[in-house]
Amino acid sequence: MIVPRLIERKRDGLRLEASEWHEIVHAYADGAVPDYQMSALLMAIYFQGLDSGEMNALTDAMIETGGRLDLAHLAIPRIDKHSTGGVGDKVSLILAPLIASLGVAVPMMSGRGLGHTGGTLDKLESIPGFRTDMSLAAARNQIDAIGCALIGQTAEIAPADRKLYALRDATATVEVIQLIAASIMSKKLAEGLTGLVLDVKSGSGSFIPDEKRGMDLANAMLELGKSRGCPVVALLTAMDRPLGFACGNALEVVESIDALKGNGPADLMDVTFALGAEMLMLGGVSPTAGAAWDSMQDAISSGRAAAKFAAIVEAQGGDPRVVDDPSLLPTAPVTGNYIAPRSGFITEVSPRAVGHGIISLGGGRTTMEDTIDPAVGFVILAKPGDRVDAGDILGTIHARNEDSFAEGERVLRDALKIGSEPASSLELISLRITADDNAAWRKPGGEPRS
Amino acid sequence: MIVPRLIERKRDGLRLEASEWHEIVHAYADGAVPDYQMSALLMAIYFQGLDSGEMNALTDAMIETGGRLDLAHLAIPRIDKHSTGGVGDKVSLILAPLIASLGVAVPMMSGRGLGHTGGTLDKLESIPGFRTDMSLAAARNQIDAIGCALIGQTAEIAPADRKLYALRDATATVEVIQLIAASIMSKKLAEGLTGLVLDVKSGSGSFIPDEKRGMDLANAMLELGKSRGCPVVALLTAMDRPLGFACGNALEVVESIDALKGNGPADLMDVTFALGAEMLMLGGVSPTAGAAWDSMQDAISSGRAAAKFAAIVEAQGGDPRVVDDPSLLPTAPVTGNYIAPRSGFITEVSPRAVGHGIISLGGGRTTMEDTIDPAVGFVILAKPGDRVDAGDILGTIHARNEDSFAEGERVLRDALKIGSEPASSLELISLRITADDNAAWRKPGGEPRS
Repeated sequence: MIVPRLIERKRDGLRLEASEWHEIVHAYADGAVPDYQMSALLMAIYFQGLDSGEMNALTDAMIETGGRLDLAHLAIPRIDKHSTGGVGDKVSLILAPLIASLGVAVPMMSGRGLGHTGGTLDKLESIPGFRTDMSLAAARNQIDAIGCALIGQTAEIAPADRKLYALRDATATVEVIQLIAASIMSKKLAEGLTGLVLDVKSGSGSFIPDEKRGMDLANAMLELGKSRGCPVVALLTAMDRPLGFACGNALEVVESIDALKGNGPADLMDVTFALGAEMLMLGGVSPTAGAAWDSMQDAISSGRAAAKFAAIVEAQGGDPRVVDDPSLLPTAPVTGNYIAPRSGFITEVSPRAVGHGIISLGGGRTTMEDTIDPAVGFVILAKPGDRVDAGDILGTIHARNEDSFAEGERVLRDALKIGSEPASSLELISLRITADDNAAWRKPGGEPRS
Repeated sequence: MIVPRLIERKRDGLRLEASEWHEIVHAYADGAVPDYQMSALLMAIYFQGLDSGEMNALTDAMIETGGRLDLAHLAIPRIDKHSTGGVGDKVSLILAPLIASLGVAVPMMSGRGLGHTGGTLDKLESIPGFRTDMSLAAARNQIDAIGCALIGQTAEIAPADRKLYALRDATATVEVIQLIAASIMSKKLAEGLTGLVLDVKSGSGSFIPDEKRGMDLANAMLELGKSRGCPVVALLTAMDRPLGFACGNALEVVESIDALKGNGPADLMDVTFALGAEMLMLGGVSPTAGAAWDSMQDAISSGRAAAKFAAIVEAQGGDPRVVDDPSLLPTAPVTGNYIAPRSGFITEVSPRAVGHGIISLGGGRTTMEDTIDPAVGFVILAKPGDRVDAGDILGTIHARNEDSFAEGERVLRDALKIGSEPASSLELISLRITADDNAAWRKPGGEPRS
């Protein structure tokens, strides 16, 4: 393998063979191919793309560089959910215990926040003592015992992907659909899943704001899953405003616990149940979406979902009393309301502005080395379309000090637009995408849409 | 400066500001920007190009990372020649002493062979004792004393370019006209020149076989020179066959010495004199090309050119007796003729096949770390268009052992095509390109071409 010749061929729009992808990915993981050659190849891929065979070969090669979560001994289905990421997206925290409480194993591998979006691992680690840096063996034992583990990408899983992802972030080569799909699926497929549900976010707050590109990503991931015996279903959901009310690590844990007890915001519950229904149907646990919604409602009403969350928290070293007493979570010293400066309609709650605002309060990252303040953030009650009067409370700001609080006010003044007419916003859950077809998503029991 | 954002902008086809080029080039030279970010930027440049302002800023920034050869104290003009490289191209070895013997200072910085083309430094170092790794201070002293120094790119000159060039070679990002122009000119401009002559090679053996791209390179370099008070004139010359007869390091030194004594092959002398005339006119030494040719002929007939070469060899640690006795140069143990296998017309002498053949005999490099055998190579007497009979001697092979000799025969069988009809080949010197216009090149005293 002469690496500059491989780069040259990709640069010139030719395809590389599966054996070449295997060789270069393994050599990169081993350090035999340096970062500077890989980043040139990545930029060539940015311009020339990968065909389906290349994407498949790259995914296989990345999986092979690491270990797998071997769960084949389990009699129950193993289903995970992946979201392309957004602001206020705490669905994983609710969904994992909820679905695990219904007899589906949920081996959930999550990431950290970067840029304007938050990360499940950061949110979980705001629970005192909670550890996500678990070995594959420990995760496997925990899944055997309680049906769920919420872990980070360990050094064992797809190390080539881990290395590549950091390189892409540093070299402006993140936004390539086939690389994103291969990266996500190399981790998910190493979890030994029997099914996967995708939450593809569209809208201004998404990493992939363009719906067409979001669909391309969903289809690429469906293809990668299908050819490996892991059926994938994707839902296209709105990220033109934050999901739920809470935005910020510990604040989102509080809202997740509320949701597990039946008190979650409507939009958050709809997205959670919509994704959860797909998990339960993929797992063969629920025959229809309607049955799945009923089961999930029951798991919440009965307290089983919240109890499963407490069990997970305890198993991963956290203080399970947070489920009963969320005040045990870190809180910010300076809190106060954000008041509507004028009357009108909320025309926008910009997720990017809110996400960057969390960073400016200290609750997010611009580099992977940044430490985060788990307590800070926003609870934004206003949603696009709401009619508000000047003086109404639109949300609360949770800050480390008075200066940060003032900064938080500026953030919300920017992020929450008030106009004289209602503006349109994206449908919360618009499409259901399977290997067979795409169809408008419909809420069980809901009226057919015109 | 947030490097991934700079890469992203270039990737997206936007331009970077001069201040940004300065910052990133300096940071790269200092090691603050890693290779992997620079290689991603280079690949983005491959696809998006650089505009004129960016190319100028990049060139300036690369010059500033190093020292300069300060020759401003000299009363005489300082003119260099640069060739885009080819096979059998030993023009520098002849031209430097020839022009220095006529009252023009020639601070000539050359490179090593890589791939199918040879390098002036490698050729010179086949002279026993000859050193090219000279400091700028030593080069300056030598130029003061004898008007010429033949040196390599020291660590002092444009270190950012040196580092970038190695990175481009390893990442398939060499072939970008603006990067090639900036790289060459950053070195040439650091020599403190008052003029520069370019030999732009076109044809199958050139690094840039396409004539249109060769012209683009010439124009980019003319622009870079013009805006910095270093007028540039370029000639477009043929590299669809080797230049002269000798191909191989010591063999080319022998031919260069022959040329300095008036016994060079016609094509080699024409290219040398054509480039030399431009140097003498740029230096104000000769009023016309015809006067320049007469002066050069006189420098050779009188022995002054050969004596200047001996002085340079001696000044740089080499054995000056080689000028009188070329048998002091390394010779290959196994030599013999290559015989025409059939009768017909020579339709091609492939410079790439010959160049790669030198490598397979041990006389070239595929990586910068390779050591080379200075003695081996070919003397190819046949030129495209020659009528040959089966059994004619077409050249000689100089090899380290019998196996290599047999390999050399295979090389020449591939490289020298014999057909039943003459084939066309490129005009030896086709165009003269100045900042003002491009015109057909005409030999002084020669007939106007139809």
